[in-house]
Amino acid sequence: MKFYDCKTAPSPRRVRVFLAEKGVEIETVQVDLASGEQLGDAFKAVNPDCVVPVLQLDDGQCITEVVAICSYIEALHPEPALMGETPLDKAAVLMWNAKVEQQGLSAMADAFRNSASGLRERALPGPDAYAQIPELAVRGRARVEHFMRRLDERLAECTYVAGDFFSIADITALAFVDFAAWIKIPLPDDAVNVARWYEAVSGRPSAKA
Amino acid sequence: MKFYDCKTAPSPRRVRVFLAEKGVEIETVQVDLASGEQLGDAFKAVNPDCVVPVLQLDDGQCITEVVAICSYIEALHPEPALMGETPLDKAAVLMWNAKVEQQGLSAMADAFRNSASGLRERALPGPDAYAQIPELAVRGRARVEHFMRRLDERLAECTYVAGDFFSIADITALAFVDFAAWIKIPLPDDAVNVARWYEAVSGRPSAKA
Repeated sequence: MKFYDCKTAPSPRRVRVFLAEKGVEIETVQVDLASGEQLGDAFKAVNPDCVVPVLQLDDGQCITEVVAICSYIEALHPEPALMGETPLDKAAVLMWNAKVEQQGLSAMADAFRNSASGLRERALPGPDAYAQIPELAVRGRARVEHFMRRLDERLAECTYVAGDFFSIADITALAFVDFAAWIKIPLPDDAVNVARWYEAVSGRPSAKA
Repeated sequence: MKFYDCKTAPSPRRVRVFLAEKGVEIETVQVDLASGEQLGDAFKAVNPDCVVPVLQLDDGQCITEVVAICSYIEALHPEPALMGETPLDKAAVLMWNAKVEQQGLSAMADAFRNSASGLRERALPGPDAYAQIPELAVRGRARVEHFMRRLDERLAECTYVAGDFFSIADITALAFVDFAAWIKIPLPDDAVNVARWYEAVSGRPSAKA
């Protein structure tokens, strides 16, 4: 297997942390997003959607989308379980992972991609060029702040995002909080539940992946 | 169990079709999105994100997000399998379901919610009011058209969206194509692979759910 990664991007980081939690190492290829390598013919043959992460199997088949890549790794390496063990826990993991993706990560991507000076015609990832929409950057920042409140309410109810066990939903939320800080949207001072959770998850060795 | 539905909305329809394929009936509550019932205190107590579908278990716990609800139903009623059977098929289903959601359904929601006269301050679902961004409606329509091309390329390769078996990814794509037609973005005449697939999946009894 081969893992197409980009060390600076939040989505492939989620797979790196997942692999580190499993103690699994996979041959890794860095894709240089800054120079547009993902838009070239060589990478398009790997993933026509022009995004990382990608997991390429030995027969050449490619799996994209973080949740799909991680479900495959979970099936090959079940321990420790990071996608839930019972039907209800599995559903809670998929639910919270989706909420963090849609309400957190995608809002953050709106905020970042619609304001970064290097991305004027690249407001969305993928093969098609879309111009920035400045109002979308403003809306994205507001949504990120709302979602931090929502996450704080959730983490008042349980130890980790999907329940009382560590899962991919925590990895997704970690990528969200860290990338939000990088685009200068820090956690609110009174988000004490997120702060307690963040100290625990960012202190795990996997968070350095 | 109780299923919170809205007969006119594409997301809960995905769960209705999924249940119909399984032959499973669940007590169903209609939520009147047109009158804003989802924003009232009674429904907020069910789902603070103010969206349907929701699956409420007998102990009161609620599962939201279509993929999470369907994974739970799949665990309780494994036959017929609609989320893949092998690790690779399961990953392909999650991957294609995510692609159709992100590149298809969410683009369509941008097109619809940023232009409908009844949704001026409701450009996003959820508890928070966001004003429409007209440029986002235009971009949404362009993305829907691009994704129809992408889906046509995919369906040139295999019978169904995730492979040679019917799955939730087909249900998601059916909701996408039907809702796109409703907002007057028809399939391109030359999307012959989507047309062939659409005839098969829309002819299944479940498509009427």
